[in-house]
Amino acid sequence: MAGALRRSLGLRTALTFLSSRSRSSLPPPQAGGQPSPSSAFRQLRLPSTSGRRVMESRGVHVGASAPPERLPFSRVAAEDLAFFRKTLPAGTVTDPDLLEFNNVDWLKSVRGYSEVLLRPQTTEEVSQILKYCNSRNLAVNPQGGNTGLVGGSVPVYDEIILSTALMNNVLTFDSVSGILTCQAGCVLENLSLYLEARDHIMPLDLGAKGSCHIGGNVATNAGGLRLLRYGSLRGTVLGLEVVLADGRVLDCLATLRKDNTGYDLKQLFIGSEGTLGVITAVSILCPRKPSAVHVAFLGCETFEQLLATFKLCKGMLGEILSAFEFLDGECMRLLNTHLKLANPIAECPFYIVIETSGSNATHDEEKLHIFLEEAMTSSLVTDGTVATEDAKIKALWSMRERLTEAVTHDGFPYKYDVSLPVERLYRLVTDMREHVGGRAKSVVGYGHIGDGNLHLNVTSSEKDPALLAAIEPFVYEWTAHCHGSISAEHGLGLKKRNYIYYSKPSQAVALMGNVKALLDPKGILNPYKMLPDDLK
Amino acid sequence: MAGALRRSLGLRTALTFLSSRSRSSLPPPQAGGQPSPSSAFRQLRLPSTSGRRVMESRGVHVGASAPPERLPFSRVAAEDLAFFRKTLPAGTVTDPDLLEFNNVDWLKSVRGYSEVLLRPQTTEEVSQILKYCNSRNLAVNPQGGNTGLVGGSVPVYDEIILSTALMNNVLTFDSVSGILTCQAGCVLENLSLYLEARDHIMPLDLGAKGSCHIGGNVATNAGGLRLLRYGSLRGTVLGLEVVLADGRVLDCLATLRKDNTGYDLKQLFIGSEGTLGVITAVSILCPRKPSAVHVAFLGCETFEQLLATFKLCKGMLGEILSAFEFLDGECMRLLNTHLKLANPIAECPFYIVIETSGSNATHDEEKLHIFLEEAMTSSLVTDGTVATEDAKIKALWSMRERLTEAVTHDGFPYKYDVSLPVERLYRLVTDMREHVGGRAKSVVGYGHIGDGNLHLNVTSSEKDPALLAAIEPFVYEWTAHCHGSISAEHGLGLKKRNYIYYSKPSQAVALMGNVKALLDPKGILNPYKMLPDDLK
Repeated sequence: MAGALRRSLGLRTALTFLSSRSRSSLPPPQAGGQPSPSSAFRQLRLPSTSGRRVMESRGVHVGASAPPERLPFSRVAAEDLAFFRKTLPAGTVTDPDLLEFNNVDWLKSVRGYSEVLLRPQTTEEVSQILKYCNSRNLAVNPQGGNTGLVGGSVPVYDEIILSTALMNNVLTFDSVSGILTCQAGCVLENLSLYLEARDHIMPLDLGAKGSCHIGGNVATNAGGLRLLRYGSLRGTVLGLEVVLADGRVLDCLATLRKDNTGYDLKQLFIGSEGTLGVITAVSILCPRKPSAVHVAFLGCETFEQLLATFKLCKGMLGEILSAFEFLDGECMRLLNTHLKLANPIAECPFYIVIETSGSNATHDEEKLHIFLEEAMTSSLVTDGTVATEDAKIKALWSMRERLTEAVTHDGFPYKYDVSLPVERLYRLVTDMREHVGGRAKSVVGYGHIGDGNLHLNVTSSEKDPALLAAIEPFVYEWTAHCHGSISAEHGLGLKKRNYIYYSKPSQAVALMGNVKALLDPKGILNPYKMLPDDLK
Repeated sequence: MAGALRRSLGLRTALTFLSSRSRSSLPPPQAGGQPSPSSAFRQLRLPSTSGRRVMESRGVHVGASAPPERLPFSRVAAEDLAFFRKTLPAGTVTDPDLLEFNNVDWLKSVRGYSEVLLRPQTTEEVSQILKYCNSRNLAVNPQGGNTGLVGGSVPVYDEIILSTALMNNVLTFDSVSGILTCQAGCVLENLSLYLEARDHIMPLDLGAKGSCHIGGNVATNAGGLRLLRYGSLRGTVLGLEVVLADGRVLDCLATLRKDNTGYDLKQLFIGSEGTLGVITAVSILCPRKPSAVHVAFLGCETFEQLLATFKLCKGMLGEILSAFEFLDGECMRLLNTHLKLANPIAECPFYIVIETSGSNATHDEEKLHIFLEEAMTSSLVTDGTVATEDAKIKALWSMRERLTEAVTHDGFPYKYDVSLPVERLYRLVTDMREHVGGRAKSVVGYGHIGDGNLHLNVTSSEKDPALLAAIEPFVYEWTAHCHGSISAEHGLGLKKRNYIYYSKPSQAVALMGNVKALLDPKGILNPYKMLPDDLK
């Protein structure tokens, strides 16, 4: 490790050395380039036949994220509480102070008014609760770690909160196949620690890992930092146990990599945001723990150079590339100002976090060295540093992982999570800056270049409806015009449910409504979430 | 390349040299070991509460793969033919000779009696056909390359055959993201060639690549030889265009790695075997073409040594491992006898095909060399050869890829495709050999160790109902007892539809029936397939 570290320091020196040469030969930032989609977007405001999805969604913008009227569910009565207390003597919570955490989302942007929190420990208990609630027409808000960003994880009115917090046991782990089965309430970081002690890792990793539950990760089809390498949960989740709205237990908890016996029902629940069933257990394929991990933190003068670095990197690092993330200079300012995190390299308009994971440290360092030399000599990268030891790796990763936190310190955040063709990804940030002008405090962009996923964040000193009106529907129309997704990984929840038509045709949304009606005919599961109001 | 080849020849010599030493120190083959599941299986024949799925499925075995009575669909009338000819002037085929290929499956084990083959070229044409057939209550058999092994790709009675053969255009390819979109009838090998010229590969590869269509691959959730490395189609397929039973076109043809806007409807159609809709276009994420590929063909004395080699290999080859396949000595006999393929190494009870794919040939060779040395010195592997040049790689792969063909030359084949925990995978082959005794001509096992997927093949000189009765339900009960899947990648089709309960609980199967009724209420799409008769 010491040798590897010396080597990385050597690389750092080489980078600094090369950067002083390469800066002078940089092209002027973002000169020329393709026409801005914002001008095209302005055309879209006129009637148009090409912008089908944009056109379809007209008329839902004003107050589209405000909840609809409370639906006619029953209200929790004394007899209901008696049933819950009998079923879950230690798991029925009604103290308002204790409920506060569960009623308010992590961003403190959405509040519900639930008076009952249920904390079952077994699938059978979940089944009894849902069977009862369905028969009594009581609405239920399934809740994991309550780390969601779109208001999907908290009640809207008085829905009963059904928390998986006490369902936190690992059930089995097979070190030959790497297949883990566990209850839905296991915290992601705890699973990571459990697996690391057994020479494996979780196939997903995200900033909220210290609080989020694996069941919530699956219910929201969480993406995160390792998707580039290990793929989405649709491939790595091998089995699920789900309790349906009426209390039936659906056992699809297989631990097989391949199983083509009938429709793959578990896929219905992955990414369904708790609206089709409550996930109670998960089986998931876990990769071997890589014996060598390296992280490089690099700086670029332009986004075009950042993209060229990505292309070079994909070719030269190939199978060992495990993350390619970026943040802009404004992000760095927020990290410096609010979290006192110091920039490890020279100031640049764009920063890249590259992670490699492999089975042979010498090979990986050689690949990384050759790539970095090429990136420097061709003036794609102007400065950088490389880490091989755990503490420094963590420090570099924190520049990316703590951005959500830095943004919340900056002011009231308006958060967007879009998929776009990578070439146009950053143009949305600059167009947004221009569009909202001085009304915003900060407009920052970061995200997963490898997945074409931008996190666009706009802050203001306080909640500002005029600013919101400037951002939306601008951001959605812009994204739809590029055939992007208006929610890449955060889901729709309460806040974005009515914007679904920007990314999905009405045929598809109608079919989603049919699926919902099939699995939850009374609509008791996570109402007001994910599906648009016009389906109700 | 010449240097790499010399190196591989050097390895070959080392392997041969080491093998003469190591053979003498081998333990007796399969001495001891865990108790055979077949004895446990015999207990299962008694009433038992632990073997739930086995018990549930009693009573469906006799003639379970024979089709049910023809359902009351309309028969094709003159007015129907007139409509088809008007809609598809060049794509309506009624000549019985021309229909022969489409009425009979590749194995020549199942025959339908369709009198109409339709070959649309566009999604709009597919939509018109299905809208018409649905209104007229005419049953439809969607067909790709007709390479399926479970009787799913041909009509059972007089269903209209809807072939995707003329829908074979590549629509777009983005070399930055690696995302390909194409029509459903593109032949897999043609797509591979198209991509290789653009420095990419398809994420799946299988023996039938020269004939199978990508639409059929997706409709059957094909696994194949690259799943170990690139994951299943559930992760790599990014979008689908599907025509529903009533002719509605469902546009989910996104080209985004991440999109969490509503339920992921395309997952319903992946692996649905044409029973929920007709896939007309696919978008799929394609990996970069690896710059270095190596193939090792190794021999082991016991299956335990083969598994130990797999474990060693996963750790030492790590991220460059792209396939770990096996065949037994009986397979080698069939290759020698029927296809005149010579064994490239010394005779062994078990053979392994290992493929590595990476971005740096020197690194890959070094990893492979270290692994092989370790495997030889620890007596796991007794002989082997390594190939780096294309022709030799192809020759080694043909030992694995041409096994289906070799089996069909051996006699009438009874084919099974099961997922099992790897430790028990080969025990099914030896138990089956013992169980059927001299009644079978050959009992051979091969498959994808990396995915826990065994292909068990039993042959006889001619169709033999007594042999079939000896094999089934034995093979299904054995598999269910190990919590395996009775169809890992081939699907259920006509032949295995009634065995679904061995791998899925009745709750899940009932829900599948609900999904079918939702999407195809008249049941016109690929009737008699996948879902069991008792759902009808």
